[in-house]
Amino acid sequence: MKSPVAAFGGAKVLVAGGLGFIGSTLAIRLIELGAEVTVVDSLDPDYGGNFANIAGYETRLGVVVADLRDRERLPELVQGCHYVFNMAAQTGHVDSMRRPVNDLEINAAAPLMLLEAVRADCPEAVVVYGSTRQIYGRPDYLPVDERHPLRPVDVNGVSKQAGEGFHTLYHQVYGLKTAILRLTNTYGPRMRIRDARQTFVGIWLRRVLEGDRFEVWGGTQQRDLAYVDDVVEAALLAAATPAAHGGVFNIGGSPPLSLLDLAQATIAANGGAGGFDLKEFPAERKSIDIGDYWADDGLFRRTVGWAPQVDLATGLRHSVEYYRANLARYL
Amino acid sequence: MKSPVAAFGGAKVLVAGGLGFIGSTLAIRLIELGAEVTVVDSLDPDYGGNFANIAGYETRLGVVVADLRDRERLPELVQGCHYVFNMAAQTGHVDSMRRPVNDLEINAAAPLMLLEAVRADCPEAVVVYGSTRQIYGRPDYLPVDERHPLRPVDVNGVSKQAGEGFHTLYHQVYGLKTAILRLTNTYGPRMRIRDARQTFVGIWLRRVLEGDRFEVWGGTQQRDLAYVDDVVEAALLAAATPAAHGGVFNIGGSPPLSLLDLAQATIAANGGAGGFDLKEFPAERKSIDIGDYWADDGLFRRTVGWAPQVDLATGLRHSVEYYRANLARYL
Repeated sequence: MKSPVAAFGGAKVLVAGGLGFIGSTLAIRLIELGAEVTVVDSLDPDYGGNFANIAGYETRLGVVVADLRDRERLPELVQGCHYVFNMAAQTGHVDSMRRPVNDLEINAAAPLMLLEAVRADCPEAVVVYGSTRQIYGRPDYLPVDERHPLRPVDVNGVSKQAGEGFHTLYHQVYGLKTAILRLTNTYGPRMRIRDARQTFVGIWLRRVLEGDRFEVWGGTQQRDLAYVDDVVEAALLAAATPAAHGGVFNIGGSPPLSLLDLAQATIAANGGAGGFDLKEFPAERKSIDIGDYWADDGLFRRTVGWAPQVDLATGLRHSVEYYRANLARYL
Repeated sequence: MKSPVAAFGGAKVLVAGGLGFIGSTLAIRLIELGAEVTVVDSLDPDYGGNFANIAGYETRLGVVVADLRDRERLPELVQGCHYVFNMAAQTGHVDSMRRPVNDLEINAAAPLMLLEAVRADCPEAVVVYGSTRQIYGRPDYLPVDERHPLRPVDVNGVSKQAGEGFHTLYHQVYGLKTAILRLTNTYGPRMRIRDARQTFVGIWLRRVLEGDRFEVWGGTQQRDLAYVDDVVEAALLAAATPAAHGGVFNIGGSPPLSLLDLAQATIAANGGAGGFDLKEFPAERKSIDIGDYWADDGLFRRTVGWAPQVDLATGLRHSVEYYRANLARYL
């Protein structure tokens, strides 16, 4: 794999959502690569922001606690940046139905405001936007490539589609160097495990580590899972590769497996300790579930030379180890 | 054509954007059909709201001056409604680039808030949403049917696509009776003619009636034009026809003609008096222009039995007559 290392040494970088799961992992990697990193995060208790995520790095990056919707803060944040990674999002599907306007604000209005700030104050910066496979809705075919129709099945999908639309538009009309990554289920150290808001894998890990049984809803759905370090590498490569700018890319992960198999792999990662109960889908979730999904990410692999490096068993084991050592800070 | 008259006698109806061009024409038609009509309009001076639009009807409908973004007002407005027509929009393409967040708020957040209010307070109501052909972007083929990819070329298109997405979603998830109409350029009495914010035809008519020359940009683009009474009939039929609920429909109009031919037809409608200058597209507009467009509206015709009744020459003549009699109230 091509290394994006050189691009980031000494670069000024903003990571939005940078105290969250993917954002903080990305920020730490950038620090290690020699970048000058500022993270901005709302620390909304419903989302992924957590100071524990930057433990040990607190003095090596700038932290701004602010909501991106507070647009007067943005010009100062983007000033002089070479790279802007927008990993700030409301990711809960049920939450998006319960508070739809909030979802639209966070997932479409705030990214638009950030693009406006970049356009005005650092138009040469590269902007990488963390999007989601949720915008495809229920797949017509598998694996899903980027030509698949977009038919979101929840407010989150509609909002993120608009968020993407603004990035594509600002590339086409203003020449901003944007790259959109449609992420599949991402897991690993630093994800929210308090509940299922960020991914169901989080709450499974919590239960397993606390010695409780977890619930698997449905169970037969097939999904691919991306380990966070692979997603971070994808974001870095998208930023550092001019051929990726203006593009929209699926980012996949492991070969697809059923949720039942994933549940067993989670228990195996905990040394075989743990158990689960199979449940019917709650009605509120069933109406917005997308069923089977796995990504065709060939376009991204060909464009930037990326491939996932961490297999599922290894990624789950790293995750278990991380939360075993840090559980109290994630509850 | 099937008549939707019966459905509206005695019905309680809310028209959002009801002091604007299409909204007011619709409100007046509904009053004539015996409906109990309330209009809500922000009267933002940049948009189409104008008290002149309901001249002679002021005592026959309720008027609430409010911005739909003021969501606390909405429950009271929708309470008990049988029909909600949402014709409130920011329609300016250049405006949407200059004030993008404003466009998103008006065209996506406000419709979402209105849907939330309907879901909570009058879930049996039919909601007709006035959308736009702008969301297709530059057509791959002509005429454009509803299967054409959506690739908006301006913020307005992205926002309206999200506005549509929420209507489709609320139909699928909550069973709301929604209908989405993708309107082409609409013209006729009560449109904004002060400037080109609502449609270029408006400013052309103003110039012709004031004895000034108008500007035609480009000139070769082919467009179809829909007369407002035909669009109003389409909205009524969409509301009154259960088979249309949950649907997305193009609404077309005249056979396509070039802007040059349209300019000549405009002058002809003024008894041959008037002239125009052909200009290059201003750069700011060229970057977001969609080029040729005309609609395939066969799906809507088949679903509800609609067909446009007013040809272009007649529609333009009615328009000239209206503004000749009412010019001062539209400047």
